[in-house]
Amino acid sequence: MIKNEKDVSFKITPWEVEGKVNYDRLVKEFGTQYITENLKKRFLKYANALHVLLRRNVFFSHRDLDKVLDDYDKGKGFFLYTGRGPSGKMHIGHLLPILFTKWLQDIFDVNVYIEITDDEKYVYSKDAKWKDIEKYADENILDIAAVGFDPNKTFIFKDSEYIKHLYPLALKVSKHINLSMARAVFGFDTTTNIGLIFYPSLQIVPTFFERKRCLIPCAIDQDPYWRIQRDIAEKFGYHKASIIHSIFLPPLTGIDSKMSTSKPEGAIFLDDAPDDVERKIMRYAFSGGQPTIELHRRYGGNPDIDVSYQWLYIFFEEDDDKILEIREKYSKGELLTGELKKYLIEKINVFLENHRNKREKIRDKVDKYLYDGKLAKKMWEISFEDIFTER
Amino acid sequence: MIKNEKDVSFKITPWEVEGKVNYDRLVKEFGTQYITENLKKRFLKYANALHVLLRRNVFFSHRDLDKVLDDYDKGKGFFLYTGRGPSGKMHIGHLLPILFTKWLQDIFDVNVYIEITDDEKYVYSKDAKWKDIEKYADENILDIAAVGFDPNKTFIFKDSEYIKHLYPLALKVSKHINLSMARAVFGFDTTTNIGLIFYPSLQIVPTFFERKRCLIPCAIDQDPYWRIQRDIAEKFGYHKASIIHSIFLPPLTGIDSKMSTSKPEGAIFLDDAPDDVERKIMRYAFSGGQPTIELHRRYGGNPDIDVSYQWLYIFFEEDDDKILEIREKYSKGELLTGELKKYLIEKINVFLENHRNKREKIRDKVDKYLYDGKLAKKMWEISFEDIFTER
Repeated sequence: MIKNEKDVSFKITPWEVEGKVNYDRLVKEFGTQYITENLKKRFLKYANALHVLLRRNVFFSHRDLDKVLDDYDKGKGFFLYTGRGPSGKMHIGHLLPILFTKWLQDIFDVNVYIEITDDEKYVYSKDAKWKDIEKYADENILDIAAVGFDPNKTFIFKDSEYIKHLYPLALKVSKHINLSMARAVFGFDTTTNIGLIFYPSLQIVPTFFERKRCLIPCAIDQDPYWRIQRDIAEKFGYHKASIIHSIFLPPLTGIDSKMSTSKPEGAIFLDDAPDDVERKIMRYAFSGGQPTIELHRRYGGNPDIDVSYQWLYIFFEEDDDKILEIREKYSKGELLTGELKKYLIEKINVFLENHRNKREKIRDKVDKYLYDGKLAKKMWEISFEDIFTER
Repeated sequence: MIKNEKDVSFKITPWEVEGKVNYDRLVKEFGTQYITENLKKRFLKYANALHVLLRRNVFFSHRDLDKVLDDYDKGKGFFLYTGRGPSGKMHIGHLLPILFTKWLQDIFDVNVYIEITDDEKYVYSKDAKWKDIEKYADENILDIAAVGFDPNKTFIFKDSEYIKHLYPLALKVSKHINLSMARAVFGFDTTTNIGLIFYPSLQIVPTFFERKRCLIPCAIDQDPYWRIQRDIAEKFGYHKASIIHSIFLPPLTGIDSKMSTSKPEGAIFLDDAPDDVERKIMRYAFSGGQPTIELHRRYGGNPDIDVSYQWLYIFFEEDDDKILEIREKYSKGELLTGELKKYLIEKINVFLENHRNKREKIRDKVDKYLYDGKLAKKMWEISFEDIFTER
């Protein structure tokens, strides 16, 4: 939890993002590093081009990303770890780190572990029903698998299903986190239930799945877990986790917050029909344009607060020339808000149709990620007893 | 944790028993009931005689034991649940509730669940090594199985091994226990690790293994768990747990505390050789006798503070006439401390030899309790999803 007596305008824990997020302050207070242009350039050794989310600074901050690349260059390798809390249907914001993780796997050809935190989502919400969480978990897994991870180098697991393997390691982690630390880092209070208090142990465990460095693409609100992991990892004889942090995809309703399942008017879900997408964007996407066409033609729009423009910039218009052209035309008033929205709607609908096609095709193959693929099979056979070689 | 500002001479949590235990005060402060002679008599409907531990008030307190007997009389039945924390070798004090549970199974012919809390013991002690805990768990299971439970109506499970079944239920329990409650009931503080804070959920889960009433024979220090269980059980559509509480078997070194593995001079372990038993009793068993034989013959001994007498009374001399005779002779000085000790040594060594014979014989059959017996098999096949029918 961010504590700043001078400015309480926002609050970030893994469960709450409130107010206008000041990313500069997060970087400073969490003690992370910006991803510099030089660091970005190192990726061009492995890829023809940078992923749009990296190029456009959606992934903007990191811890030890340079060390991961060093290890890779030295032939030591690394592994990727990310996750999803299955509290509901997935929206586009949820898919971005997954897509980015897939890109990293493609260029580095490394193992990917994806934790589905059904336990967390069940204990977090007073009203959550287990059956709903499990249903969402299974649906979310299809959405994740759809992005096309290597079926022999990717293991997707639900905490509750894989718990026999996770639990002894989680206990070991839990012994290194006392209540005082957990309260300071996660903002737990006297009303927090003891399931949620234990949960951080479970999220930290997969960073110890291999002895190599672990690189975690995730939104910056997850950083508290990694701060704790980095406190204890070396006591276990493991590497401190490396992280590559993203901003939040802004909700349609305005760029200052985080897209949320609980505010459906601000989010585009992966199963939204083309009509829904059109309706939501037309109705809710916050516009940086002028109140009338005449005023817009005269004064131009403001792309920096225009959510449609931001979405195109962040992800949906990968072409750098094209996005610059849109920016200029919109700023000058040559492009109207309605036209901008129509452009975004089409981009989103093409993306979603493509995603859903892949999702249907993966349905029969999803067991590869869960049980049968080379890595998954190994993970179901493995015992983590070796981690109990106490150091 | 007992809070009493006037008298801080003792402290009881499931992990610490310090100072002279005042059982009357525990009954009052925990809000339990004494087991009355009338309640004891109800057992004579099912058994020819009362178990010595019940007759001699080692099991002295209860919650809703009368309701369990009512349910049994009405044909509704009930089930038994007890446990063992495998932090080391078992001593005689650990075996008493197990022996008593076996007697209850014999007379009522009901299911017994025995939880081996390897998770608890691992997270409780900073220095505990997982491999040691697991080794002790396996050894302890043999000692428990040796008492001869019905192999088709008894399920012994290690938490870490059975966790996939326990975990979703534990999460559900955990949602009903907030930090404030956990601190008040268990005395957790800011230095407590988050594994131990979560653990009470796991100990409560087995009370929901059946929809019948659950009767728990245990030492009274375990009562905090059941107070929480009783707070939440009815919200789940289950019965409040019923408990039958024992005092602690006093250590050899004096009647005022609890036998402890960490003070081996005060405990007789189940694997102590006859020589060890003799040496320990002769050397450490606190005597209520006089300093010299002459004084003893003249003034007599005090059986109420004499540990050898107490052990005979509590468990090792079941014959009521015989124990009364010993008491009288010892009080009058006719029986010397050395003689009393010799009598106890022989009783203990016969008991231990018998126990170890049974332990060797059960080795090949222990899988019945763990995996193959009728109840164990069912428990490995069961899914507790029905408990998620939220109420």
